[in-house]
Amino acid sequence: MTFIKPDFLLQSQQAITLYEKCAAPSAIVDYHNHLSPKDIAENRQFNNLSEIWLEGDHYKWRAMRINGVPEEYCTGARDPYEKFLAWSKTVPHTLRNPLYHWTHLELKNYFNVNELLSEHTARAIYDHASAQLQQPEFRVQALLTRMNVAVVGTTDDPADSLEYHVRFAESTAGFKMVPTFRPDKSYTTHDALAYNQYLDTLGRVAGVTIQSLDDLLQALKMRVDFFDSLGCRASDHGLEFLYFEEDALIKAAGIFKKVRKGDNLSVSEQQTLRSAVLLELSKWYHEREWAQQFHLGAIRNNNARMMKTLGPDTGFDSIGDFAQAKHMALYFNALDTTNQLARTIIYNLNPADNEVFATMLGNFSDGSIPGKMQWGSGWWFLDQKEGMEKQLNALSNMGLLSRFVGMVTDSRSFLSFPRHEYFRRILCNMLGEDMKNGSVPNDLELAGELVKQVCYHNAMRYFRF
Amino acid sequence: MTFIKPDFLLQSQQAITLYEKCAAPSAIVDYHNHLSPKDIAENRQFNNLSEIWLEGDHYKWRAMRINGVPEEYCTGARDPYEKFLAWSKTVPHTLRNPLYHWTHLELKNYFNVNELLSEHTARAIYDHASAQLQQPEFRVQALLTRMNVAVVGTTDDPADSLEYHVRFAESTAGFKMVPTFRPDKSYTTHDALAYNQYLDTLGRVAGVTIQSLDDLLQALKMRVDFFDSLGCRASDHGLEFLYFEEDALIKAAGIFKKVRKGDNLSVSEQQTLRSAVLLELSKWYHEREWAQQFHLGAIRNNNARMMKTLGPDTGFDSIGDFAQAKHMALYFNALDTTNQLARTIIYNLNPADNEVFATMLGNFSDGSIPGKMQWGSGWWFLDQKEGMEKQLNALSNMGLLSRFVGMVTDSRSFLSFPRHEYFRRILCNMLGEDMKNGSVPNDLELAGELVKQVCYHNAMRYFRF
Amino acid sequence: MTFIKPDFLLQSQQAITLYEKCAAPSAIVDYHNHLSPKDIAENRQFNNLSEIWLEGDHYKWRAMRINGVPEEYCTGARDPYEKFLAWSKTVPHTLRNPLYHWTHLELKNYFNVNELLSEHTARAIYDHASAQLQQPEFRVQALLTRMNVAVVGTTDDPADSLEYHVRFAESTAGFKMVPTFRPDKSYTTHDALAYNQYLDTLGRVAGVTIQSLDDLLQALKMRVDFFDSLGCRASDHGLEFLYFEEDALIKAAGIFKKVRKGDNLSVSEQQTLRSAVLLELSKWYHEREWAQQFHLGAIRNNNARMMKTLGPDTGFDSIGDFAQAKHMALYFNALDTTNQLARTIIYNLNPADNEVFATMLGNFSDGSIPGKMQWGSGWWFLDQKEGMEKQLNALSNMGLLSRFVGMVTDSRSFLSFPRHEYFRRILCNMLGEDMKNGSVPNDLELAGELVKQVCYHNAMRYFRF
Repeated sequence: MTFIKPDFLLQSQQAITLYEKCAAPSAIVDYHNHLSPKDIAENRQFNNLSEIWLEGDHYKWRAMRINGVPEEYCTGARDPYEKFLAWSKTVPHTLRNPLYHWTHLELKNYFNVNELLSEHTARAIYDHASAQLQQPEFRVQALLTRMNVAVVGTTDDPADSLEYHVRFAESTAGFKMVPTFRPDKSYTTHDALAYNQYLDTLGRVAGVTIQSLDDLLQALKMRVDFFDSLGCRASDHGLEFLYFEEDALIKAAGIFKKVRKGDNLSVSEQQTLRSAVLLELSKWYHEREWAQQFHLGAIRNNNARMMKTLGPDTGFDSIGDFAQAKHMALYFNALDTTNQLARTIIYNLNPADNEVFATMLGNFSDGSIPGKMQWGSGWWFLDQKEGMEKQLNALSNMGLLSRFVGMVTDSRSFLSFPRHEYFRRILCNMLGEDMKNGSVPNDLELAGELVKQVCYHNAMRYFRF
Repeated sequence: MTFIKPDFLLQSQQAITLYEKCAAPSAIVDYHNHLSPKDIAENRQFNNLSEIWLEGDHYKWRAMRINGVPEEYCTGARDPYEKFLAWSKTVPHTLRNPLYHWTHLELKNYFNVNELLSEHTARAIYDHASAQLQQPEFRVQALLTRMNVAVVGTTDDPADSLEYHVRFAESTAGFKMVPTFRPDKSYTTHDALAYNQYLDTLGRVAGVTIQSLDDLLQALKMRVDFFDSLGCRASDHGLEFLYFEEDALIKAAGIFKKVRKGDNLSVSEQQTLRSAVLLELSKWYHEREWAQQFHLGAIRNNNARMMKTLGPDTGFDSIGDFAQAKHMALYFNALDTTNQLARTIIYNLNPADNEVFATMLGNFSDGSIPGKMQWGSGWWFLDQKEGMEKQLNALSNMGLLSRFVGMVTDSRSFLSFPRHEYFRRILCNMLGEDMKNGSVPNDLELAGELVKQVCYHNAMRYFRF
Repeated sequence: MTFIKPDFLLQSQQAITLYEKCAAPSAIVDYHNHLSPKDIAENRQFNNLSEIWLEGDHYKWRAMRINGVPEEYCTGARDPYEKFLAWSKTVPHTLRNPLYHWTHLELKNYFNVNELLSEHTARAIYDHASAQLQQPEFRVQALLTRMNVAVVGTTDDPADSLEYHVRFAESTAGFKMVPTFRPDKSYTTHDALAYNQYLDTLGRVAGVTIQSLDDLLQALKMRVDFFDSLGCRASDHGLEFLYFEEDALIKAAGIFKKVRKGDNLSVSEQQTLRSAVLLELSKWYHEREWAQQFHLGAIRNNNARMMKTLGPDTGFDSIGDFAQAKHMALYFNALDTTNQLARTIIYNLNPADNEVFATMLGNFSDGSIPGKMQWGSGWWFLDQKEGMEKQLNALSNMGLLSRFVGMVTDSRSFLSFPRHEYFRRILCNMLGEDMKNGSVPNDLELAGELVKQVCYHNAMRYFRF
């Protein structure tokens, strides 16, 4: 009994046709992820399934911990197969979780494995996949090419040299890799010591001695230009919520001096400084016709004990419940007032905010660019069938689905590209269902055109790739 | 291929029967809308499809802006057909948005057009519909009569003379038009100058020199009585959230003096004054057995640039995320304590608040009037299939759907009455589905009675029309 | 026409099989309810259907009030049949409300009644059921045994003598009754007089003169140990939101002295004292391997007029909209930091918070106990089909459904145990649907194992019953 069949998640003939004719053939534009530029440029080869699949995957670790698996099998010192076996024992317990789907989609699409993973099948699957990983066609670039990837957008700090982007640009790989400007560290000031170390690094890379806020802004602007020169077409920012403050720039100069001396800032001062830097950055993004991305609403590093041991991004983050609407409106309005609001993508983490995000777009759509304001695809905890369906439905009801720039993996894993297939099946299934029940005209051309735009063309046009 | 077929949205035989036998024959009680009393009294004739359909429709403008259509084609100087063509080109891009359904329901129901609107069909549809609009049976009163409208409840400022209501009362039209008392301007004080101008107007109309808060309340009370004499049975209020403050009335007298002198008020003073006036109004509504309506949770005029050019209600509002529960409970409790809580309808804009609203009703249902506390139909951005379904489901789960006063258009457009049909199809489809799958007894009389009550009788009884 | 058929709510063959083979045979572990230990120990017999069904059921009263039924028929002086008749007339108006399902499930399962309840069938059903209630097999213990109840967890104040638990422990009933430690009164200080009276009682029972915070904690600790000795394996707490404050214990000593003298506390002082007591309690729960339960998010006693007449828990509570995420994370982190975080179950009342709760679990799952952090079953207003489905879906998507400890009635009624059947049908229907449409492998053993664990084994293991 095969689990992932050709009609997986496709519950109508219309859905099957849309998927096969319009979605599946579309190349993938993965404009936002956390893949390693080094691994891509160097065309990394992985030693075994554990290394490519479990190393760095905090989704899997989290599920294992919930399942009662000790930390040594997640991030600890156990050997690769022991870890893989612990994961395999957890898999049947993930029934109805997206990990169950992802796991079997990935086994099938990369390794042609059709068995369900469990402790009983673990050994055979591990050996089979690990053997394949020794082949040249399982190096990183070939894996991406096999998935029909056209563009990969990595996530990079302004202080990053982008050396791997430079090197990769000279390669002959069949896809494009562009950097994304992620300047969170440049306005994250709760730890004065860490902030000053960062400023030193940034200054060195930019060739600017950063003593004042003006110096910082000058350095950042130089980095924006450098990123732009390497094909960067977007920035990205991870924030609890957006924040606008009148005259933040004026107030921020003194605040910056304070923290640069090593003094700690109050929460309100941190906020003012962040707001000031961010607003300037947003204007430069607009000048360069970049898209600015905001990932909003996470609460991070909630477990102090594990933060001390493992550091950030290890599976101890969750969904916050911040008031988002007015803050966001004021921020965008400040930029719009002087006609400096760039293409913008907002991602929300709390589905209770879906409609706030969906309707925010309309406030600042000015007819200048189709789909100028975007609400990003289901993100992180929402990157699953129900999360995507809710996002697609709210976007449909309160905006124009047809202008959506579509799916991104936002992933650290080279095996995560079937998430695009997952998204496409879900999208086609929704449209097919609508066609079957008559709420969308039973016209494959009309719906098919939408699918093609959302899967590929909208993103290519929006990001000017 | 016809899109809007007789079984549109009706996915079971039970749904079809319920709709045909119980919903479709029911007259429409549109107890809350923004239609022009002047247009109704004067029985306006429209020149063309653009005038009746696009002029004043911020839903369409908003979709066009998102689609990249310049402002001149939305609210600007382009000629009627150019605007219509721009809208027609946008329509295929609205697939899955309620505008796609509304558009084709309206074309079919008013103009007997079955084609899908697009740039290819735009010219023919425009000419066909515009020609029909020249006929006497396409004047405003005939359009309402054709839709089987029994009652129209307009939205009127206390300072309004209601001259068109007086005039219409003498006409022989087959439906009733009643005013609704919307006193928002009487407690909206963020702009002291505008507020004072409003007070002057109100005082003139009421024949009261408004110098003190007592004078304002006296003037408002006179207007309440005048509205009542013309058949008004409801008030309406648009607020971010309800607010109750102990002793607001005492504090408000001085605050009123301050703003009446032209001084600006602090946000907290504005809130106190608003709370004081509103609470007095609420008591008078109770005395007169009116229903008080509260539309809660919008954030408005978010785009300052467009606000300056186009003014309010032009498509730059969105959904807020205010804490609603405790404020609301305190406000209603203050009135209930002295047994002065009127019939009340609360409308929420953020579906994340659905269950807060649905359960609030039970706190103040006192057995005096069936369905005394009402949660209004899906409003504005929620006036679509999913929004309605969520409202109907939460209301069913946490209250009594059978006592619901049902749908309103809340619309500015004479072509929007098929939204009642839309609602009714959705309601019947839900019940039909329940009957088909056995979660509601397969008893057409039981479910049919509910449908009739919700479509017509509950509202007629509740508002004492 | 029978309404509650064997396949009620089961819409696929897979669902029917799962329910019949795996769910229905499982014994019930009702680890949290508000049943009367006295009634259970004394094996109460009820006089008539009104007494067992309407007395104390604020769900029904609430529906009746919404339906326009005067209070005398809800909680007032009307005779039992008049009240029953008033309820019977309301029942058809509850269509689509869970009360409609519960009513007919209870009539069928306890009294073998298949007719729909309405004013027409009221008399016959009342007489039939009341006659049955005279039989010994309709006494309380037999009713629970008939429902296949294995464990009943009552809710008890620390000052309770637990005499009925002691007495029942010696009986030969076929099920277990354990107390649950619910210390809300020990940190609820808004009414200084009532608080001091409570402290006197608690001190008397514990044999401690409570003059200081240390005395209070000593008394509570003794009661925790006493509860533990009688099989208590869980605590329970009803709060608007969790709250952690650094150094609360130090600050609280003085605050306690103040309120113990009879002085009223500020809201902030109340919060500090509550936080201090709660945190100490949590540590003792961890020591004893109890599960701590937190019911979060209700706003209570919103109707002051009815509160004065009827007291709390009479149907005037509703859903709040508090910020929950950061408070909760800080509270759990404080306990986790010293490795003193007990098994924890969080229940939320506002479905808008579902995903906040679902993802919070992962932050503090440390691999020590499978499913250590639990998100409780749909509670109160959410104890209905849609509420349960949303909870099960969010838990599936963001955690491990397979580790869920499952359903509780949380009820005051001996007739409410079909709510377990209701939950199980819903669970099986979801899994069956998934299997039918291919999103879960069509493998009855895989899904069946999950059903058995969730229905029975997880709870037995988790609570160490």
